[in-house]
Amino acid sequence: MEQLTVSTSQTTELIDITATIQSFVTNNNLVDGVLYIFCPHTTAGLTVNENWDPDVRHDMLLTIDGDIVPPDKRHRHAEGNSPAHIKASLIGSSLPLLVEGGKVLLGRWQGIYFAEFDGPRRRHIWLKFLKGA
Amino acid sequence: MEQLTVSTSQTTELIDITATIQSFVTNNNLVDGVLYIFCPHTTAGLTVNENWDPDVRHDMLLTIDGDIVPPDKRHRHAEGNSPAHIKASLIGSSLPLLVEGGKVLLGRWQGIYFAEFDGPRRRHIWLKFLKGA
Amino acid sequence: MEQLTVSTSQTTELIDITATIQSFVTNNNLVDGVLYIFCPHTTAGLTVNENWDPDVRHDMLLTIDGDIVPPDKRHRHAEGNSPAHIKASLIGSSLPLLVEGGKVLLGRWQGIYFAEFDGPRRRHIWLKFLKGA
Repeated sequence: MEQLTVSTSQTTELIDITATIQSFVTNNNLVDGVLYIFCPHTTAGLTVNENWDPDVRHDMLLTIDGDIVPPDKRHRHAEGNSPAHIKASLIGSSLPLLVEGGKVLLGRWQGIYFAEFDGPRRRHIWLKFLKGA
Repeated sequence: MEQLTVSTSQTTELIDITATIQSFVTNNNLVDGVLYIFCPHTTAGLTVNENWDPDVRHDMLLTIDGDIVPPDKRHRHAEGNSPAHIKASLIGSSLPLLVEGGKVLLGRWQGIYFAEFDGPRRRHIWLKFLKGA
Repeated sequence: MEQLTVSTSQTTELIDITATIQSFVTNNNLVDGVLYIFCPHTTAGLTVNENWDPDVRHDMLLTIDGDIVPPDKRHRHAEGNSPAHIKASLIGSSLPLLVEGGKVLLGRWQGIYFAEFDGPRRRHIWLKFLKGA
């Protein structure tokens, strides 16, 4: 298992890690298989979405933070970050990515995102590769 | 990596692709391992859910489209399809499926769905297989 | 494929299966690779989240059951459990876990949860392991 570090600067933030992940694949000569990326935190996640128009990220967080999982005074967890935990489970923490020809396979408009829901923090991403046939 | 094509006919739609995926496994003599299916689009996803009563699909879309991620005039993304992007990240785009004895392993009531959130469109599904021991 | 059984006791419940999964890895001498856990039910899922403060689970279910996917009289599915189906697709049913040195790799505060959304029931978890290099 290898570990990458991501520093987040906002409370909630979608950080494009596509180039970082591709560099990892390139630098480790990973050619064909499946790359698992895993978020070892309980208030952040990993997802794939558009990386062309930054307004998409804005709109995603506007709706997720404000409408789908807003702050809630009924929450008991003393740290006060229960919404971040809920968002982490909705977005997911384990993401398998296809690799062929030394490239992470993504659609034309897709990028890979680290989804911070309780920043700013120094975060990690764990990676493991299984070779194809 | 292999690619399948799915044509969707509604704005939002859950299309049962179970038979298509099983045919892919059968036709390629895939016997034992993990089949990764990946959605290369940013306004659609892949999920597993009931494929017996079509009312389940109706109710899922009623709630997801109308209540969890409804249209929102505050969204900035000029294409106007930010809700579809949000739904894609909630549902997920990368789905590992277990394969044994040449069969995709699914529970009694489960089917595999392509979740269209911004159709109708011609869509793709990417597939890659890793062999078991 | 191996199968584990989980008995749930509430309508909705997050059951910590971390020790069960680690025991499976230990007892089967799984050392290095990826362990896929799969939920073969359409009204339950699998997720990773905090396993330290039980209030986190309380708050997660309070918000998911009461606010994100509450009961809805417009739902048509005669069994009346459409919210449970929706929650299953939001949380996800297929979870790859990294294994190294005979240990399931989890962050400091993470545990693995079986998410029951239509209990109490006797439930199953399917497991399959692919070896690393």
